[in-house]
Amino acid sequence: MKRNLNEILSQMTLEEKASLCSGLNMWQTKSVERLGIPSIVMTDGPHGLRKQANPGDMSSKTVPATCFPSGAGLASSWDRDLIREVGEAIAEECLQEDVQIILGPAVNIKRSPLCGRNFEYFSEDPYLSSEMGANHVKGVQSKGVGTSVKHFAANNQETLRNSINAIVDERTLNEIYLRSFEGPVVEGDAWTVMCAYNQVNGDYCSENDYLLNQVLKKKWGHRGLVMTDWGAINERVKGLKAGLELEMPYVGPEHDQMIVDAVKSGELDEAVLDEAVIRLLTVIFQGVDGRQEGFTYDKEAHHLLARRAAADCMVLLKNDDRLLPLHSGQSVAVIGAFAKHPRYQGGGSSHISPTRIDAAFDAISSMAQDAEYAQGYNLKGDDIRQDLIDEAVKLARSKDVAVIFAGLPESFESEGVDRTHLDMPLSQIRLIEAVAAVQPNTAVVLSNGSPITMPWLPQVKAVLEGYLGGQATGSATADVLYGAVNPSGKLAETFPVRLEQTPSYLNFPGGKSEVNYGEGLFVGYRYYEAKKEQPLFPFGHGLSYTTYAYEGIALDKTKIKDTESLKVAVTVRNTGQVAGKEVVQLYVKPLGSSVVRPIKELKGFAKVNLAPGEAATVEFTLDKRSFAFFNTEIHDWFAETGDYEIVVGPSSAETPLAAIVHLESTAVPFRKVDRNTKFFELLAIPETAEFADQAMNGSLERIKQMGAMFAESMGDDGLAELFEAVVQWRKYDALRSLSGMMGGGMTEAELANVIDELNEKLNLNS
Amino acid sequence: MKRNLNEILSQMTLEEKASLCSGLNMWQTKSVERLGIPSIVMTDGPHGLRKQANPGDMSSKTVPATCFPSGAGLASSWDRDLIREVGEAIAEECLQEDVQIILGPAVNIKRSPLCGRNFEYFSEDPYLSSEMGANHVKGVQSKGVGTSVKHFAANNQETLRNSINAIVDERTLNEIYLRSFEGPVVEGDAWTVMCAYNQVNGDYCSENDYLLNQVLKKKWGHRGLVMTDWGAINERVKGLKAGLELEMPYVGPEHDQMIVDAVKSGELDEAVLDEAVIRLLTVIFQGVDGRQEGFTYDKEAHHLLARRAAADCMVLLKNDDRLLPLHSGQSVAVIGAFAKHPRYQGGGSSHISPTRIDAAFDAISSMAQDAEYAQGYNLKGDDIRQDLIDEAVKLARSKDVAVIFAGLPESFESEGVDRTHLDMPLSQIRLIEAVAAVQPNTAVVLSNGSPITMPWLPQVKAVLEGYLGGQATGSATADVLYGAVNPSGKLAETFPVRLEQTPSYLNFPGGKSEVNYGEGLFVGYRYYEAKKEQPLFPFGHGLSYTTYAYEGIALDKTKIKDTESLKVAVTVRNTGQVAGKEVVQLYVKPLGSSVVRPIKELKGFAKVNLAPGEAATVEFTLDKRSFAFFNTEIHDWFAETGDYEIVVGPSSAETPLAAIVHLESTAVPFRKVDRNTKFFELLAIPETAEFADQAMNGSLERIKQMGAMFAESMGDDGLAELFEAVVQWRKYDALRSLSGMMGGGMTEAELANVIDELNEKLNLNS
Repeated sequence: MKRNLNEILSQMTLEEKASLCSGLNMWQTKSVERLGIPSIVMTDGPHGLRKQANPGDMSSKTVPATCFPSGAGLASSWDRDLIREVGEAIAEECLQEDVQIILGPAVNIKRSPLCGRNFEYFSEDPYLSSEMGANHVKGVQSKGVGTSVKHFAANNQETLRNSINAIVDERTLNEIYLRSFEGPVVEGDAWTVMCAYNQVNGDYCSENDYLLNQVLKKKWGHRGLVMTDWGAINERVKGLKAGLELEMPYVGPEHDQMIVDAVKSGELDEAVLDEAVIRLLTVIFQGVDGRQEGFTYDKEAHHLLARRAAADCMVLLKNDDRLLPLHSGQSVAVIGAFAKHPRYQGGGSSHISPTRIDAAFDAISSMAQDAEYAQGYNLKGDDIRQDLIDEAVKLARSKDVAVIFAGLPESFESEGVDRTHLDMPLSQIRLIEAVAAVQPNTAVVLSNGSPITMPWLPQVKAVLEGYLGGQATGSATADVLYGAVNPSGKLAETFPVRLEQTPSYLNFPGGKSEVNYGEGLFVGYRYYEAKKEQPLFPFGHGLSYTTYAYEGIALDKTKIKDTESLKVAVTVRNTGQVAGKEVVQLYVKPLGSSVVRPIKELKGFAKVNLAPGEAATVEFTLDKRSFAFFNTEIHDWFAETGDYEIVVGPSSAETPLAAIVHLESTAVPFRKVDRNTKFFELLAIPETAEFADQAMNGSLERIKQMGAMFAESMGDDGLAELFEAVVQWRKYDALRSLSGMMGGGMTEAELANVIDELNEKLNLNS
Repeated sequence: MKRNLNEILSQMTLEEKASLCSGLNMWQTKSVERLGIPSIVMTDGPHGLRKQANPGDMSSKTVPATCFPSGAGLASSWDRDLIREVGEAIAEECLQEDVQIILGPAVNIKRSPLCGRNFEYFSEDPYLSSEMGANHVKGVQSKGVGTSVKHFAANNQETLRNSINAIVDERTLNEIYLRSFEGPVVEGDAWTVMCAYNQVNGDYCSENDYLLNQVLKKKWGHRGLVMTDWGAINERVKGLKAGLELEMPYVGPEHDQMIVDAVKSGELDEAVLDEAVIRLLTVIFQGVDGRQEGFTYDKEAHHLLARRAAADCMVLLKNDDRLLPLHSGQSVAVIGAFAKHPRYQGGGSSHISPTRIDAAFDAISSMAQDAEYAQGYNLKGDDIRQDLIDEAVKLARSKDVAVIFAGLPESFESEGVDRTHLDMPLSQIRLIEAVAAVQPNTAVVLSNGSPITMPWLPQVKAVLEGYLGGQATGSATADVLYGAVNPSGKLAETFPVRLEQTPSYLNFPGGKSEVNYGEGLFVGYRYYEAKKEQPLFPFGHGLSYTTYAYEGIALDKTKIKDTESLKVAVTVRNTGQVAGKEVVQLYVKPLGSSVVRPIKELKGFAKVNLAPGEAATVEFTLDKRSFAFFNTEIHDWFAETGDYEIVVGPSSAETPLAAIVHLESTAVPFRKVDRNTKFFELLAIPETAEFADQAMNGSLERIKQMGAMFAESMGDDGLAELFEAVVQWRKYDALRSLSGMMGGGMTEAELANVIDELNEKLNLNS
């Protein structure tokens, strides 16, 4: 429904405007009844609805909702369609419960595997995370329900999250941490963004002008509103100025009054408040327009979707001797308490009440002719239960195969607390070792929100990573174990061998006041590849019950300008005996650069469904952004002239296809020529190359003279070498050297003229 | 001689004042004859004098001077007395040549082993580097000759050194990179400091107000002058304002005129120029007063000092089966061109004309009854000379032992160019492998300015690291090989196994415009220890021909305040058969901290001379600085309350003695209490602990209520756990939470009062 928001705004009193800038209570916005501005409801997500029956009553019960796989799982599907479908289903549950905004997706980057909330997040890679986030948003919002992309930004740890100051350099912030939000905001057009608790480079996210005004609103063109994470407000008026519209939850009238006072005193321009109110009204009415009274969703269909999603998220990490899939004729020992009491979601604000729970043992029992259960360990704590281990060993010995359900208990990972190590409970490690010692056909199914070490890995034949698979994880696991579903998940994060190997190890979680993102761009596989560190399992890894051949790669051009796009066609064939879905991964490798760059970066992926013997050609479109780095001189993306290798394969560690494209930049990588512009910078631009060449060489005679002082000790050969070297370095000198020791006596006035002319040539004088 | 500098200043015209701010030519300052202000001469150093015969004539020859071991070698002595003695000798050569200032010492930190100028620098550790630098300065200046501590600051690479912007966080800058300069400036009272070419955090070092005015002049109280590295000027007037007095060399009248114009236009306060002139006059007259007409030094004595110094710098890295020392009765194959043509100094501005050169082969021949030489490889290039290898193998096979002289050719490391790898020439690697294959008693003597990889290490019995040992390195090597000198050097830097293992690998040498010091504090052993990386040889490592027992450690107190000092007495005994000098190393290990800290840091060392069987007790005095980190909130050193372990031993990897001291801080680690001061910060200070405790606990009821929303999905147990956790986190909340979601409804005015009272209590209101 079209409304004239400016008309509504014009009728609002100052006090009414200010009142909209904080919530009504824990979950609702305030209404202004005399102007027909209603209250809307938002609730926690993101992988299912956590709504209190009466949003105005903090003590009311949480209504049941379908629990889908958490973010870590969904991202492992690398399936844009699947996550959109899940988003649509969640939106339907919102419609039934009259919820206008579900808080999520959570797209923070997995800087360290220790972050207690990683189970909610997608990936260590910003492109993958951004794509998953965008499609979650599209799915939910396609049904008229809003999202809140969170936690903006650099909220990559739980330790001291309310206050920690994340020190992140501009390039890393843009290439890694903000990049992950760009898809959900720009492509997804998320209604709202939730700012994080922490500080970024000295300003709280709730009052960070760079993050909210400059990046989110100006650069990305976000039209919706920014809300605080619950309780993340610092100084109310400063926040409003920085681009924060909505404070949640309501804690009293004081902050609204501060806004009123600030306008009255002239400290706050009322136009800033007006813009905020327009944004608030925009989202409130979007929510209102989306309402569908009496809507009900199909619980059974959603549960089946949860099951399908969980199966498509699982990552087959290891499968020696093709132990998996199992067949129904094999007798199976089903071991581990998780087989009956699945660990299917993480702790904290995303913790929901599921509509039902499938236990793996029940599902396996329905598929296998002979399945028996042994508990193996206690659900709580780390105590080794030798009696339970003995029982499990006895059972395992008596069967054809053993499947151990293991992973992390809920107390090991939760919102609010970071892990301090990567280990499973010792009780489970001992169980796996004991069982594998008597049963060569042992598979381990893992339920955990983030990577663990696997000291027992060489002793078992198969490992299936199930992440936190939601309420249907049990049945989905059985689907994969018995081949009803061919596993197709790929790791969205690197599994390290040991904690000290992780990229942020030296600075995670930092000190009591700040955390320095010293590893910079080298997050996840970017680090392992650059440092030549062998991880336990690389990013993008995941096995299948079939095999794929990467048959060919073709580029539509071998040379492009940065203003053009490039099409990459990749042919993949299913060379095995069963149908399967393959995640084709495309990485871009700059072959030389003027800045430090990761060895390669993910810039495309596609999930293709292939029947046995079938081949498909997948087409990727790359553009400037696929080749660019964030240039901190122009504060924008810049794709440098040079050769780039496009490599494609089934994992970051395996890229059998490769092709090279030459890119020609049409942009100037600095704002202005000045006295410290270097010759090499001018040499790289056609308009200024000739000038630079002449200016550099004009001073070589003088340099030769200066070399004479070394004649005695270096000899003629040494001197000739030195002169050669100086000629090489000269291109790294700045224009100011033309008036200095190396120069030819140019005056400062002449130098100023030269600089002016160069700017003229490059149209940079404006 | 006492002069009234203010009186002289008052007689100077504006133009005369400005004229002093740049040199007369390449090596001299300008005079003002009518006022009796003379010109003084400065020349390159630091490990020997590089003076052109006529300093006013750039084409005149370099006069001969004694070439002492370069910085990398001298630091390996860990001998304060020795480096002071070398400084005194260099000063004597300056006196003879009428040089008033010798440029050095060079105290930049070895951030990466690739830095082409590391041979001139002392160490990866700021304490060791600072101590060496201070004693070099004291030695030189004790004779009335000035020094110039260089290159200030963060000039840790040669790549793009004229322009690169080093991005270094405040804490790292102070704890690592500036710390190294503090000793030479504060304790050494260096007459001058030379600013570096590069930028630090966005400002050229020649106009970096933080480095020159704030740190050097205000914090450290430097009374002398700052000069540019040659050609490092950027904007003249900006430089003067930032604390740069002297521009070198002279390139024309324009910059002096700029100063005159700026004063006339009011852009520059003449008082700034006046202060600069007072500093210039101070140093010029210090130089004049130090002159000793007709002084001559004893060339022979200086050569013998160079020989003694070189021997005391060498580091015995490996000595299996006690292959070394050799005895004169063994027949010896002396292999490698360096045995006849020693590599004894590095390339660039420090390259001097030695008074003579000792070749190792000559010295060995005078000690061994049977010594023969084979060249083994060409001095230049990397080509494998199989004929020379075959000849060497033949010789080696025919003798009792083989000593191979190897390392890096001059073209592999020089000022101006960084290395790109850590490898020796392949021609030498193949030589060592071939010789070791036929001669089990093979020793390798290395001449190189910085670490190399040693793929052949397991194949040889002994390795002696000689660094660049100066003109007497050949005879000194023979002294060590034959036991005339018992080696006592210890590595002042870590030798890595592979390049990718080095701390700065991801960001060295950075991009074309900036380099991010992302590894932060974790330079050298601080990195290897924290990441649990095994290096090839650890920091502080070095073997001896005798053995030492670390017998005891005693602290004079078990508990100190940060205002007190602690005495540590360490008893070491020579338990072997020959006399020796041991470097006793003391490290401090904080046991817990509110900031990220290295596992341990060097805070004391002493070199003790022990006869066989003799024991000595070495006393160290530790103070606040030994325990402190640089606190970026108060911009000063802060020693936190807590336990600290003092560990002592012969190497960073071996610290058999340990004792714990408890330190009690008497300082407040922040500038002011504000709304974002955290409860835990207040809990740590006696005056505010009680308030914090009460305030935190006052809001727990409210938090309990909020937990109710999770009752449904988490159950009673989960809820109890959650509540426990929240109580734990609460201490990390800020005071502002008292008025927020977690608080008890405190108004902003009440909060402001509370903050005011807390500041009152801590005397922070001024």
